[in-house]
Amino acid sequence: MTAYKDMSVEELMELKSELEQEFEEVKAKGLKLDMSRGKPSMAQLNLSMGMMDVLTSESDLSCEEGVDCRNYGVLDGIREAKQLLADMMEVPRENIVIFGNSSLNVMYDTIARSMTHGVMGSTPWCKLDKVKFLCPVPGYDRHFAITEHFGIEMVNVPMTPTGPDMDIVEKLVAEDDSIKGIWCVPKYSNPQGITYSDETVHRFACLKPAAKDFRIFWDNAYGIHHLYADKQDYLVEILMECKKAGNPDMVYKFASTSKISFPGSGIGAIAASDANLVAIRKQMQIQTIGHDKLNQLRHARFFGDIYGMVMHMEKHAEILRPKFDKVLETLERELAGLEIGSWIAPRGGYFISFDSMEGCAKAIVARAKEAGVVMTGAGATFPYGKDPKDSNIRIAPSYPTLEELATATEIFVLSVKLASIDKLLGNL
Amino acid sequence: MTAYKDMSVEELMELKSELEQEFEEVKAKGLKLDMSRGKPSMAQLNLSMGMMDVLTSESDLSCEEGVDCRNYGVLDGIREAKQLLADMMEVPRENIVIFGNSSLNVMYDTIARSMTHGVMGSTPWCKLDKVKFLCPVPGYDRHFAITEHFGIEMVNVPMTPTGPDMDIVEKLVAEDDSIKGIWCVPKYSNPQGITYSDETVHRFACLKPAAKDFRIFWDNAYGIHHLYADKQDYLVEILMECKKAGNPDMVYKFASTSKISFPGSGIGAIAASDANLVAIRKQMQIQTIGHDKLNQLRHARFFGDIYGMVMHMEKHAEILRPKFDKVLETLERELAGLEIGSWIAPRGGYFISFDSMEGCAKAIVARAKEAGVVMTGAGATFPYGKDPKDSNIRIAPSYPTLEELATATEIFVLSVKLASIDKLLGNL
Repeated sequence: MTAYKDMSVEELMELKSELEQEFEEVKAKGLKLDMSRGKPSMAQLNLSMGMMDVLTSESDLSCEEGVDCRNYGVLDGIREAKQLLADMMEVPRENIVIFGNSSLNVMYDTIARSMTHGVMGSTPWCKLDKVKFLCPVPGYDRHFAITEHFGIEMVNVPMTPTGPDMDIVEKLVAEDDSIKGIWCVPKYSNPQGITYSDETVHRFACLKPAAKDFRIFWDNAYGIHHLYADKQDYLVEILMECKKAGNPDMVYKFASTSKISFPGSGIGAIAASDANLVAIRKQMQIQTIGHDKLNQLRHARFFGDIYGMVMHMEKHAEILRPKFDKVLETLERELAGLEIGSWIAPRGGYFISFDSMEGCAKAIVARAKEAGVVMTGAGATFPYGKDPKDSNIRIAPSYPTLEELATATEIFVLSVKLASIDKLLGNL
Repeated sequence: MTAYKDMSVEELMELKSELEQEFEEVKAKGLKLDMSRGKPSMAQLNLSMGMMDVLTSESDLSCEEGVDCRNYGVLDGIREAKQLLADMMEVPRENIVIFGNSSLNVMYDTIARSMTHGVMGSTPWCKLDKVKFLCPVPGYDRHFAITEHFGIEMVNVPMTPTGPDMDIVEKLVAEDDSIKGIWCVPKYSNPQGITYSDETVHRFACLKPAAKDFRIFWDNAYGIHHLYADKQDYLVEILMECKKAGNPDMVYKFASTSKISFPGSGIGAIAASDANLVAIRKQMQIQTIGHDKLNQLRHARFFGDIYGMVMHMEKHAEILRPKFDKVLETLERELAGLEIGSWIAPRGGYFISFDSMEGCAKAIVARAKEAGVVMTGAGATFPYGKDPKDSNIRIAPSYPTLEELATATEIFVLSVKLASIDKLLGNL
C-alpha cells in the first residue's frame, strides 16, 4: 500500500481516472443515503415499543408520592423518574431535576437563564460586555449553535485522546473572567468517541476559574451508550469530584433518555449541586407548573430500574455494533496506509470522527453528496462552522440499515480518495 | 335583608357573636378544603382516560406527513395536531406552532426571547433601561409572575364588564414606547369570567403603540371552556382582526389543551402572523429538535377533530356547571342585599371573582384558612400581589367535589360576613 503523498503525479492521475469512473457508476445509481445525524434506526425504536403499553386506561396513574400524574403539580419530577435518571446519571436523587423531552432544551434554558438572571445571583450575562465559552473541538454543533445564538464568543480548545487540552483550559479560565463556561461531552464524545480520562475529570473539578459564575456544561449524552458489553469506557463522576475538590457548584450535568427510549418523547434532566438547583427551581416555577408526568411515569414503569435500563442498552448495542464495525472495517480496508485520513474506533456513542488531509473535508462531503450520500456538513463540528484545517468529518452510522451503510461508506471512502488526489494535484 | 352598613353597632355586635359561634363550630370540624387553583377534578380527568389507549405497540406511529413520531424531527408540530389546535384557536394551520405540555412555558419563552433577542429584530429588551407591561386587573397571577421575574414594570389597567378599559390602554401604549406588551385572558377571563366585547377586540387590533415591538399577549386559555351549551360567549378572533386593521404582527395568541385533556400532559401552542412565526422558529430550532410528537399524535387521534373536542368539552361542562351553580347560589342566598360583596356569574372558564368591601379580602382569606378552606391568596390577582383596595378574591370551584364545595362555600360566606362586620366595627 503506497501512501498517496509518495505517488508520482502520473500515478495519481491514473488512479484518479479509475476512481472517477467508479464514482460515475455509483452516481448513476441515484442513491439517497444519510449518514448525517445521530438518529436511532427503526430497529432501535422498536426496542421501546413496550413503552406504548405501559400506561393504559386501566392503570393506576399515581406516582410514588401519591400525586395523580394526569393533573397539575410536581414541579421538578416524580420520585420514581428522578430515581431512574439519578441512577443513570450516577448522582443522588436529590440532585436531579426532570424536564421535558429534550436535554438540548435544558441546556438552552440554562444559558438563557444565565443571560437574563445570572448564575446564583451573579450579574446577568446580558449585562456584560463580553461573555466567552470554551469549546473543545471537534465538538457538537447544537452546543455551538446555542452559544452563538446568545452572542457568546466561542474559543476553540483542542481535544486530545484524553479529553480537552487541560493545560489550555486551566490557563484560560484562570486568567479570563469573561469565560463563563465550557461545553463538554465527556463520554464517547461527539464526534470522536473519546472518554475523558480520570486525570482530565479531576483537573476539571480542580479548576480555579477567574469568573465565580463559570460553569462546566457537562453533557453526558452517551453515559450508558456502550457498543460492547465487555469493553466499556469509565468516566469519573464529576459532581462528586467537584464536591471533593471544594467546587461543588461548578458543574451542570445534562442527560436524557432520547437515545434510550424515543428521541422525540424521552425525558431530559439536569443534575447539579443543591445551591444550583435552588436557583434553577426558582426560575423553573415561573416557567412551568411542571413537565409531563405521565411520560415520566411511563419511563419509570417501563425500565423498572437502572438495571432494566442497562439491559435495554445492550439491545441497542447489538444493533449499533455491526454498523460501527462495518464503517470501521471499510475505512481500514480502503484507507489504511494511504495517509489521507485518520479516525478513531470508539467504544460507544453515536459517531466516528474522520480527519482528512488538511483542506479536503468540504470537498469530500461535496463529493459524497454528489453521489447521493448526505454527511454532516464539513465544519459543523467547529464553532461558527469553521474548521480551521477543513479536515474533520463526522460519520453517523446509526440511522441507515447495514446494507445502506455499506454502500454509503464505500461512497465515502471513494470521495476521500478523490478529494485527496485533487488536493495533492493542486486542484483544490 | 338589611345591608350591614345600615345596621347599628349593637346589631352588628349581636350578629357577630352569632356568626363567631357558627364559625367555631365549623372550625372544630378540622376540614381541609381547597378552592385555590383552577385544577380539573378527578371526574374531569377521567373523561380523557381513553387517551391512554389511543396509541399502543400495535399502532402506526407515523403522522400524516409520514414521519415516525418516535424519532427526532418536525420542529413545530405534526400536521394533524396543528390542524386540531388551529381549529381550536380559530386560525389557519399555517399560523400555529406546537410546543410542549404548557402554554405558560410558551409565554415564558416568548418573553425570555424578547429579553435576549428582541422582537422581530428590535433591540433586546434586556438592553433597554425600562420595559413595561400593561396588566388588566384583576388578572392571572402566573402572568404577573413572569413579567416580575424579568424585571418588567407592571402597570395596572382596570377591567370593565367589556374587557380592559380601552381608553387607558390606547392612551398609554400610544404615548409610552417602553410599554412592550399587555397580558390578556380575553374569554372567560381569569378571574372574572369576562369576555372582551367585539368593540374591545376591535380597539385592540387598532392600537397604535409607540413601541414597534409592542405585542398583545392574548392568552385564550378558556376559548372553548363553556359552562352552558346554550349560553356561550363569543370572542372576535384577534389574529384576523389585527390583520384587517393593518397590524398583523401585533399579537401572540396562546392556548393549550391543559384543561381539555390532561393538565400535566397536554399540548401547548402559539398562533401568530407569518413574520412572527419566522422569528419564533428561528429561535426554536436552536432550543430544541422538536417537542413530544407522540403526545401530539395521541391528542389528534383521541379527539379526531374540533367537533370531537367540542363534544368532549360538553362533558367537562356537565361536571363543572353544578359546581359553579352551587357557589353562585350560596353567594346569592347568603350575601345578596347585605352590600358586603359583589360577584359575576360567568358563562365559562374556571373562576368566580368576588369583590369584598374595601380592605377585607386578606381578612376573609385568613378567616377561611382558619376554618380549613384554602383560597387563592388575597392580592394574587394583582401585579406584585398588591390589590390596592384589598378586595378581590378568586374562587376556583373546579377541584373539590360538589359536597366539599358546598361546605367550603358556606365557610367562605361566613368568613366574608365576619370580616365585613369587623371592618364596619373598625376592628380591621
